[in-house]
This record gives sequence, structure tokens and C-alpha cells, in this order.
Amino acid sequence: MAVYTEVTDEQLSAFIDTYPIGQLLSFKGIAEGVENSNFLVHTETGYFILTLYEKRVAPEDLPFFLGLMGHLAERGLNCPIPVENKSGGVLGELAGRPAALISFLDGMWVKRPAAAHCAALGEAMAQFHLAGQDFELSRPNTLSVGGWRPLFAQCKDQADSVYPGLSDIITAELETIEKHWPKNLPSGVIHADLFPDNVFFLNDRLSGLIDFYFACNDAFAYDIAICLNAWCFETDLSFNVTKARALLNGYASVRALEPAEYNALPLLARGSALRFLLTRLYDWLSVPDGALVTPKDPVEYLKKLRFHQSVETATAYGLEA
Amino acid sequence: MAVYTEVTDEQLSAFIDTYPIGQLLSFKGIAEGVENSNFLVHTETGYFILTLYEKRVAPEDLPFFLGLMGHLAERGLNCPIPVENKSGGVLGELAGRPAALISFLDGMWVKRPAAAHCAALGEAMAQFHLAGQDFELSRPNTLSVGGWRPLFAQCKDQADSVYPGLSDIITAELETIEKHWPKNLPSGVIHADLFPDNVFFLNDRLSGLIDFYFACNDAFAYDIAICLNAWCFETDLSFNVTKARALLNGYASVRALEPAEYNALPLLARGSALRFLLTRLYDWLSVPDGALVTPKDPVEYLKKLRFHQSVETATAYGLEA
Repeated sequence: MAVYTEVTDEQLSAFIDTYPIGQLLSFKGIAEGVENSNFLVHTETGYFILTLYEKRVAPEDLPFFLGLMGHLAERGLNCPIPVENKSGGVLGELAGRPAALISFLDGMWVKRPAAAHCAALGEAMAQFHLAGQDFELSRPNTLSVGGWRPLFAQCKDQADSVYPGLSDIITAELETIEKHWPKNLPSGVIHADLFPDNVFFLNDRLSGLIDFYFACNDAFAYDIAICLNAWCFETDLSFNVTKARALLNGYASVRALEPAEYNALPLLARGSALRFLLTRLYDWLSVPDGALVTPKDPVEYLKKLRFHQSVETATAYGLEA
Repeated sequence: MAVYTEVTDEQLSAFIDTYPIGQLLSFKGIAEGVENSNFLVHTETGYFILTLYEKRVAPEDLPFFLGLMGHLAERGLNCPIPVENKSGGVLGELAGRPAALISFLDGMWVKRPAAAHCAALGEAMAQFHLAGQDFELSRPNTLSVGGWRPLFAQCKDQADSVYPGLSDIITAELETIEKHWPKNLPSGVIHADLFPDNVFFLNDRLSGLIDFYFACNDAFAYDIAICLNAWCFETDLSFNVTKARALLNGYASVRALEPAEYNALPLLARGSALRFLLTRLYDWLSVPDGALVTPKDPVEYLKKLRFHQSVETATAYGLEA
């Protein structure tokens, strides 16, 4: 939870004046999001989310992220939509930060997803993948297999302080994954961060997807693998195969999985577990004393990785061979 | 900025169901307020603020605070209004905390108030004092002169670590103030915390007062003295007599000051400066390492105290004798 940048009402009023949305009536900082500063803005024409992009978002990626949201919304996906300013652009500057005004999306995320939520997530993810196919911009996945070794190099020496033997475990896993990482799977724009807090529901119906700031071009099945990790483990880190089956069946009801994707799932799930293990490990070791944000536990993803290491085929995820 | 208590969507939905405001559509934690947890709630019928009262608010005071807001609103004062639940009450419980749902008030607080803002504040404060006169509940001011010595006792030993000689300065000031503290001034319900962040403006017009959780019964002129300290010093802590004159004239245009109130202002201003010096000193010395909230600087109020010590009569605040 965070508001990293303070904005004065004069600054904000001047910024809002560049949009055709009437006069500013109120604004409040939102205690959510660990990457950016978010404010709820009320004007004469409605409620909006104002996002100030902090240092973890590269400014050159913003046209991709904001353009993607508009593109997906045009194709019927429920997601926040960047508001065009009076010059027709969607990106501005406020308090020295790149800033965008985005429509307010109703819905709440589910802290304890049930199988039905996983099924709805699968459907929405497949719709996302299909809707993104004719998006004209692209962005490489900087947090895919090629990025993991450099990331590990920055925290390898301290890894064992977090969990005994962790450095060796990651070294061995990196070798296996780099050797067997699948190529030529069906690819396109993926969300790459579809954790439960980025998926809104209303009355147990999925009402929208949010937070597109990790979106990139990569294998569709890698997005699925991320969700298997993020949605299908219980709080005791046991794997719930019913939820996984619901997720995969929900996905396949919109976009059929090819055999190569199906076969790659165990390795993609290992890779996805390693990706979050590494970024969490890096954050865990980098967090300054007295920081406002508590880093997430890397060991959770070590345990998920170990589950997928024990998996031989994707039947372990609940589907028939 | 803070959300101290996490609320699940199931808990919140059940709570919202006790109000006649339609179905819950979304909620977001607000990064404001250092005493309570606040959420913006959107339902089918509008936007509301949900407040969970944390440990610094005594539950037995809540009927006074919430009743006062309703009372003032009925008399035409712009302030947030507690929403009645289906049983006709305004106080509920959520996540183990007392909780209330309050109307959403537009407006923004002014970081650098000008004399015109001070004049508007004076008028609104006098309207508040008049509107509160027939409020049937009362609440003593636990942070008035009788509470300062016990508060000081808890931080006296460490006071000099914050500012050299501070312990002696406060000891001497307490003696003077206790000896000369005025009695029998016109009294009633005062806000007691009308800092700029509790006064909303729209287009430089005052649009409402918020945050009634220090309101109590005390001398009206003490409320004025608090505002002289909170609104009329520049960032370099020089006193701006133009702003003070605007504030006092604004107040007197709605409710005339009696001579006894006028004469008491310098001592009341010293007392008010001492009150915030003491509470800030206490917070400064009590804050745990790694706390989410940065305590406010007590020395600011030492400097304000010293200004008022140098004042002989209320003419120093810009009014004719």
C-alpha cells in the first residue's frame, strides 16, 4: 500500500484541466499497489483512477501498457480504459512523473478463490489472449528465462541467508530450465501478473482484469502457468487439482490448448515459480530498513517450485492425457 | 497514511448488507488519516467513506462524534453525514472494530492557505459553534489544561533528547498556564482539530469540515486559538498577522467575540501550542522503529509557543484593541 509521490491540489487541478472531464471535486490517495502511486479522483463527470508511474515502470513501456488497455477494451474485454486528454493523448506528466487517468472499474478481488473463480479466470485469460492478437505494439518479456540468471547473480551470495541451500537449488533449477525451455509455442500478448488481486469479481462473476504493467509478448501457456501458481495452491501450499482443472477447462472453452502447450505446462510452471522466487528473493534482500512495504515471502515460491519438480506430465494439473 | 485493519470482501459485503444502500460494487483503502482505517466504498446508490475506529478512538465517544455530525448537518453545516443502517443506527462492527459508513464529501484541503481561506475558516468555525449549541450530548476535552501535566509526565525524562532544555521550558510554561487559564468563557461544542487538512475547499470556497474525532465541549475561543496556530504561521514559522486578522474577522462576522474571549486569546494560543507540542512530543518518543507513520515535529509547536509568549495583548493577532 502506498502513495509515493505527494501531489498538491494546484498541480492536480492543472493536470485535470488537460482532460475533458469537468472540474476536479476531490482526490484521495489509495492504499494499494506497490509499484505506482494511485489516487481516486472525482470530477464533475465521474470517478477516475490517477496513476503516477514510479521508477519501476519504464516510461518507454507506457505506450504499450496504455495502448493495450484501450485495445482490449475496444474488443470487449472489461478492463480500465485510459482517458484521452484534450490533445487526444493518454499520457501526461504530474509532479515530475509520467501520469495517466484511467476509468474506475468496479469489482473486488477474491482473497480465497474457489474453483468457480479459477474457471472464470481461465476464460477471461483466453479472451485476453485472443483479443491481444491484433495489437500492433509489442514488448519483450524481460522477466522470462533470459532474465533470470542476471537477476540471480544479484542475490546469489545472500540466498542461503533466506533459506538453507537455496543458492544451490536455484543454480540447478536454472540449468534444467534453460536447457529445456520450450520454444515456438503459440504466443502473443500475455498479462504475466494475473494474481488474484488483479482480477475483479462481482457476485462471483468476473467483472474485469486490472494492472497491465507486466504485460508483454510471450507464450500464452506461460500466462497459464503463472496462474496455476497464483490461484491453485491452498494457504498451506498444497496443490488443489480441482482448481487447476477448472482453470484449464475454463481457458480451453475459449481457446483450445495445443498438445505442445499442454506438454510444456510442467516446465512452464517450474519456470514461473522460479521467476517469482527470484524477484521475491531480490526484493527481500533489497528492502531498506523501515520500508513502507513488507516484501513477499520468497520461500512460498520455492515450495511451489518443488511441487512442479515432482510433476511428470500435465495430467497432474487435472486434465486427461 | 494508513489502513490498519484488513477487511475481506465477504466481511464488507455482510456489513454493507445492513445498510439500505444497494449492493457493494468496489472498495479501496484510502491512504489518509493517522487515527483510523478508511475505505472508499462504492455501492449501487453511490460512494461512501467507511471508517474503522482504531484504538486511539474510545468506543464510548462514538455516539457523541457521529451524533454531532448528524446534528450539524441538520443545521445546514457541510460535513460528512453518518448513514443510518436498516435498524436506524449509525454505528456497527466490522473486523472486530467499531465501524461507521459516512457520506462522501467533495472538496480538497489547501496546503498553503491564504488570508481568504482563513476568513472562510473563521466563518465556518463560528457557524459550527452556533450550530452545536443545542446538541444534547457532551464530551469533556481530555486534551485541555488538566490533561497536559499527566501527558508531560510520560515524556518529561526524554524531552531534552528532542530539544535541549525542553523539559524546563515546558515545566515553566505549564505552571504559568495552569495558574492563569481562563474560566467561564463562552463555551460549547468545539472541533478542537481544525487543521487545514480537515477543511475542504472547492474553487477557494469552503465546502465542508471533516474529522470530528477530537470534538468536545470547551471554550469557543480555544478553538480559535488552535486555528491561529494551525493556519496563521508561514512555513518558516513566522506569524502572518494578515491571516490572523482575516480569521478573527471572519469568525466575528458570524459570532461576535466577547471582551473576555478577546483578552484570553494570547494565553489560549499558548495553551493550544503547548497541547500540540506535548502530543507531538509524546508521539515522537513513542513511535516504534519501522513504523508506517512519520510523527510530526514537536519543535514546530515549541516555536509557535515562543511567539505567543512574546505577545502581550490580542492586538498582536491583528485586531483593534
